[in-house]
Amino acid sequence: MSANSFGRFLTMTTFGESHGPALGVVLDGVPPGLVLDVDRVQEALDRRRPGTSSVTSPRSEADRVEVLSGLYESTTTGAPLAMLFRNEDVDSAKYLALQDVYRPGHADFTYHQKYGFRDPRGGGRSSGRETVARVAAGAVASQILAPWQIHVRGWVAQVGDVVAEVFDPAVIDTNPVRCPDPAAAEAMVACIEAAKEAGDSVGGRIRVRAEHMPIGLGDPVFAKLDAVLAGALMSIGGVKAVEIGAGCAVVGRRGSDNNDQRDRTGYLSNHAGGVLGGISNGDPLEVALSVKPTASIGRPQQTVDAQGSERILEVEGRHDPCLCPRIVPVAEAMVTFCLADALLAQRALGREPPVR
Amino acid sequence: MSANSFGRFLTMTTFGESHGPALGVVLDGVPPGLVLDVDRVQEALDRRRPGTSSVTSPRSEADRVEVLSGLYESTTTGAPLAMLFRNEDVDSAKYLALQDVYRPGHADFTYHQKYGFRDPRGGGRSSGRETVARVAAGAVASQILAPWQIHVRGWVAQVGDVVAEVFDPAVIDTNPVRCPDPAAAEAMVACIEAAKEAGDSVGGRIRVRAEHMPIGLGDPVFAKLDAVLAGALMSIGGVKAVEIGAGCAVVGRRGSDNNDQRDRTGYLSNHAGGVLGGISNGDPLEVALSVKPTASIGRPQQTVDAQGSERILEVEGRHDPCLCPRIVPVAEAMVTFCLADALLAQRALGREPPVR
Amino acid sequence: MSANSFGRFLTMTTFGESHGPALGVVLDGVPPGLVLDVDRVQEALDRRRPGTSSVTSPRSEADRVEVLSGLYESTTTGAPLAMLFRNEDVDSAKYLALQDVYRPGHADFTYHQKYGFRDPRGGGRSSGRETVARVAAGAVASQILAPWQIHVRGWVAQVGDVVAEVFDPAVIDTNPVRCPDPAAAEAMVACIEAAKEAGDSVGGRIRVRAEHMPIGLGDPVFAKLDAVLAGALMSIGGVKAVEIGAGCAVVGRRGSDNNDQRDRTGYLSNHAGGVLGGISNGDPLEVALSVKPTASIGRPQQTVDAQGSERILEVEGRHDPCLCPRIVPVAEAMVTFCLADALLAQRALGREPPVR
Amino acid sequence: MSANSFGRFLTMTTFGESHGPALGVVLDGVPPGLVLDVDRVQEALDRRRPGTSSVTSPRSEADRVEVLSGLYESTTTGAPLAMLFRNEDVDSAKYLALQDVYRPGHADFTYHQKYGFRDPRGGGRSSGRETVARVAAGAVASQILAPWQIHVRGWVAQVGDVVAEVFDPAVIDTNPVRCPDPAAAEAMVACIEAAKEAGDSVGGRIRVRAEHMPIGLGDPVFAKLDAVLAGALMSIGGVKAVEIGAGCAVVGRRGSDNNDQRDRTGYLSNHAGGVLGGISNGDPLEVALSVKPTASIGRPQQTVDAQGSERILEVEGRHDPCLCPRIVPVAEAMVTFCLADALLAQRALGREPPVR
Repeated sequence: MSANSFGRFLTMTTFGESHGPALGVVLDGVPPGLVLDVDRVQEALDRRRPGTSSVTSPRSEADRVEVLSGLYESTTTGAPLAMLFRNEDVDSAKYLALQDVYRPGHADFTYHQKYGFRDPRGGGRSSGRETVARVAAGAVASQILAPWQIHVRGWVAQVGDVVAEVFDPAVIDTNPVRCPDPAAAEAMVACIEAAKEAGDSVGGRIRVRAEHMPIGLGDPVFAKLDAVLAGALMSIGGVKAVEIGAGCAVVGRRGSDNNDQRDRTGYLSNHAGGVLGGISNGDPLEVALSVKPTASIGRPQQTVDAQGSERILEVEGRHDPCLCPRIVPVAEAMVTFCLADALLAQRALGREPPVR
Repeated sequence: MSANSFGRFLTMTTFGESHGPALGVVLDGVPPGLVLDVDRVQEALDRRRPGTSSVTSPRSEADRVEVLSGLYESTTTGAPLAMLFRNEDVDSAKYLALQDVYRPGHADFTYHQKYGFRDPRGGGRSSGRETVARVAAGAVASQILAPWQIHVRGWVAQVGDVVAEVFDPAVIDTNPVRCPDPAAAEAMVACIEAAKEAGDSVGGRIRVRAEHMPIGLGDPVFAKLDAVLAGALMSIGGVKAVEIGAGCAVVGRRGSDNNDQRDRTGYLSNHAGGVLGGISNGDPLEVALSVKPTASIGRPQQTVDAQGSERILEVEGRHDPCLCPRIVPVAEAMVTFCLADALLAQRALGREPPVR
Repeated sequence: MSANSFGRFLTMTTFGESHGPALGVVLDGVPPGLVLDVDRVQEALDRRRPGTSSVTSPRSEADRVEVLSGLYESTTTGAPLAMLFRNEDVDSAKYLALQDVYRPGHADFTYHQKYGFRDPRGGGRSSGRETVARVAAGAVASQILAPWQIHVRGWVAQVGDVVAEVFDPAVIDTNPVRCPDPAAAEAMVACIEAAKEAGDSVGGRIRVRAEHMPIGLGDPVFAKLDAVLAGALMSIGGVKAVEIGAGCAVVGRRGSDNNDQRDRTGYLSNHAGGVLGGISNGDPLEVALSVKPTASIGRPQQTVDAQGSERILEVEGRHDPCLCPRIVPVAEAMVTFCLADALLAQRALGREPPVR
Repeated sequence: MSANSFGRFLTMTTFGESHGPALGVVLDGVPPGLVLDVDRVQEALDRRRPGTSSVTSPRSEADRVEVLSGLYESTTTGAPLAMLFRNEDVDSAKYLALQDVYRPGHADFTYHQKYGFRDPRGGGRSSGRETVARVAAGAVASQILAPWQIHVRGWVAQVGDVVAEVFDPAVIDTNPVRCPDPAAAEAMVACIEAAKEAGDSVGGRIRVRAEHMPIGLGDPVFAKLDAVLAGALMSIGGVKAVEIGAGCAVVGRRGSDNNDQRDRTGYLSNHAGGVLGGISNGDPLEVALSVKPTASIGRPQQTVDAQGSERILEVEGRHDPCLCPRIVPVAEAMVTFCLADALLAQRALGREPPVR
């Protein structure tokens, strides 16, 4: 199977480089007869765009979606749904100047070694721009899921050592860091700006929750819902850990604390994060991603070039000093896509959950 | 693709339930001409067995491997390699007594809801016995990888609040908890025994490291090495978090701390855990798994049965009070399998790393 | 994907060699809650066995099915369904005597060249015994399809130059050649016996028809129903042509003759063989297979051995002088499996045909 | 796996409808470091275009290829190679007038029934325009295969009852029917023109041969080279039979006639068509396709509409009165693609055939 394809029943195949002509995605398995709201796909893409705040990259891409196939009279036909996104604001000069230098924290060295040849412009295929395709795919998946009213929402839970203590979902989209805690949001912005001023970057943690979950999604043993999610989320550039439910916190617990007991009304806790034995149990799905600090920083770093000479590198270019706010919609998209795929898998078994 | 199959170039398809007649695995894509040492497969299976210590389950299975196909004169032929493991020490009585009760922390409820019907004997397909097949597959993968001399080793790094502070690999297999720190090992055993005596269980953390890594393994974007590993490891029952390299610790860092700089001799640190852009960079691969405390505990727990009545449950049966020591060989097997698969993928590109 | 796996939603993974310990198959995607009649699987296997007629091989295998997993109280659980078939009547001596000689019409040379090493016993993986697994898989698929009452039936339509002119389905299983024309059946037996007495073998044609077809099975463009069937049937050893509907006869026709016109009651002809645009149209599915004469013959043939020396070969061993009668149940099984897979695919789209 | 994806190691995912904005293909698994000659891709597309002869459709599409990704400095990078082809000469009016009528021989009825909704413009996804993507994929595959100097060539061997008796490869591209027999070519043109004048169409047979075949391509049991080819070729619209080597002619043969004997210099005949046990034997690969007469004809035909009313239909529009000449490059492309995929599969086993 193609390394650039994802999903078993609903599949996306993505393509494109940071500074190539375009990125795109082909979705297959989209159920026919769905009236697709392309504006909502565009809104999802707009949400992923850098925006204009002090904490994001100045690269300005319209990320305008063009639907190339699979729709007739705004309705899905069962044919592959292809979407295209042209790159417009491409400036490769700074990358070409560094094309022989392996930037620390980037994939320059590994791409070069793996393929013997690489596209240095903007990181080529290893660029975060690749996630445009994922977000569009997620926006379609979201419309497939609409009858089940599953609600997927991500947010930034931590930046550096600033932790969100309050969860007010209405606040998430009102601040540039996508944090549900207004006070923490301000502190996060300050933290990011401080890093940026120091020519540096900062890491953080994202949480994604899916509410109104159907029971029964996920297919043991290798296509368990949590396993698929872990693979999907770890495939996002910069993610270094994926946790489900209580995640790393289970290490120090006893079973009597960690097991989710239940009474007639449901589970009394949700340490499992909504997944038991790889199958959704109806409680909210809870995942967390640990995101490394942006690799591109202005401070001098020691590295080597393709000829093996040592180099001191100061990266210029257009970068987000903290990746988290921009990864939120990508993580939401991947979770949404996984849920739609699992739902179609369940449907193939003849066990489709009832719509709400 | 089958939910019970794993791998793109080297594939394993597993089957079997805890109390069914047998478990098994079919491997496809095994290169021909490999003289397979079946004794080493058996040794790997033996390493996974409960053993006789105070910290493991009393269920006693020989887990004797029977190779059914794919070998002629001990040599792989390129045909599928099937291996069978008979269940022998099956006692379903205690499970059948509880067949209508949803055990907390187990997949009883979700299997029942997903499939409308379930095999209650020993957890059926959701049992940890499923990992017998994985360990055998990993032992074959290990022999495929032999010419590259990649060395994959796992250990228990934490049990409850006992953390290994010393890393002496020679110690790992000398204690029942597979801990590389002799003093911590003793404390871990005590921690597990204390939990067991309290009718309880305890969680822990496993680390796996692969040394002598070839450069170039992993296929962007969805088959990135770290993404594949995350999915593979999260698919092991009880695992609630997967971390690569610095993992969750990246959250609080700045880029200038987290980036791995390098000089002529190589990387100066390995926060990346050996993967950049989803491709191995030649440094040791470092992954960590957070494992929840065993769900089966003797203490009374509140739950419901299939008829919706509330029940107080005290689980009897044969269980490991801490899953970690037994998951170590499973995690090693999955990492090894992923590396062999990635190596064959690289070979298909015509870019196979040279053997050592 | 594994070369020994077949199917997209319902998958079978097969393993085993002619003279190895056992053959087997793992089915995944079997809907849960199906009460599986294992006796019917055994009956299908018995139908595939050589039998005791003058026109079939004297090798005597019980082909007893052992279900290893996926069933609880005779009901499918949604877990992989593994079935095992032990080889019992193995006599490798004659094969080992010829292990360096490339038998004409057999895969000896190509397996040796492809893999650099081969299992010579009974043809190893290239043996027709591999089809035991397919027949068992088809028998399960048939039970999955039962609610739709699709009726799949194959027969021998030609042996050598003897063509069946009459179609009486009741006759098919009353003669050793599985021919629906009683007079032709006698002539076919005579034709086969004559070839056998001459130390020779003979080819033939098989037809398979599926009646009561649901509309809408098949997924453009590469998983078209006819494309999938063509691949499935051509993968059976000895098949050299697959025709759908009018097949080769379309070459000489004009569109006005070949198009199937329709009125209110349905299509007025079925040159299409029940497939339009790769999707079933509700008319009977009609496929034909051209099967080569058995490669193993007693007459002297010129060949070479692995050392490049020329050899004159007279094959002994146990062979069917005409493969057709024994391929009938295999072809039925593959058609049945493809239909079940296509039906699950349609179900995944939310467009499952109503049961009858 | 996506129904619109093909290939195991080298994969193509295609999209697009006849009258939608564009068609396209995403190739994954393309080895890195290949200097891709895009002009040769364009030449292959030009060869597929209708041309200006009396025997082809007047629809005029430039089929200009735009490479969207996967290339840097004309060299493949290992990233997915996406190619786009804009539809330009779209005139949907005649199709919309018939959008409720099920055209005989077309997929209108089956698409409508399968999906509950269809794109009627130019046949939507069921149109032959879909093959633009395949031809481009084949042209890339051809460049991957270049070092092995495999030579794939197709031609029209029969139209109606006109059979090519002479094989002069230099003649193929000098006549509008792609026939290697100059006299037969003239008769074929006359045959097609006669059908066209009668408001009718005509069927034919295509042969494809691959010379300089490496030994060892094809993966038993379901990915046998002949099985994969059969599926690939039957997936081309209008193809109703696929034959390998002697094909249907084996039916009337004895083994002593059909087996390919060999001496020191090689096989003495090639009834196998270059494949034994599903693996290439080094002799030329020989396949034949039977192509039905074009479904769209001017003569009145009886059919029904979506409301169930009977209708008499006379199809206008732009069609080829014989599909064969235009399917030749598509068949060549599919064969080439299958060979490249099989070669990468062999490479993954560590058994790559040496380049010439």
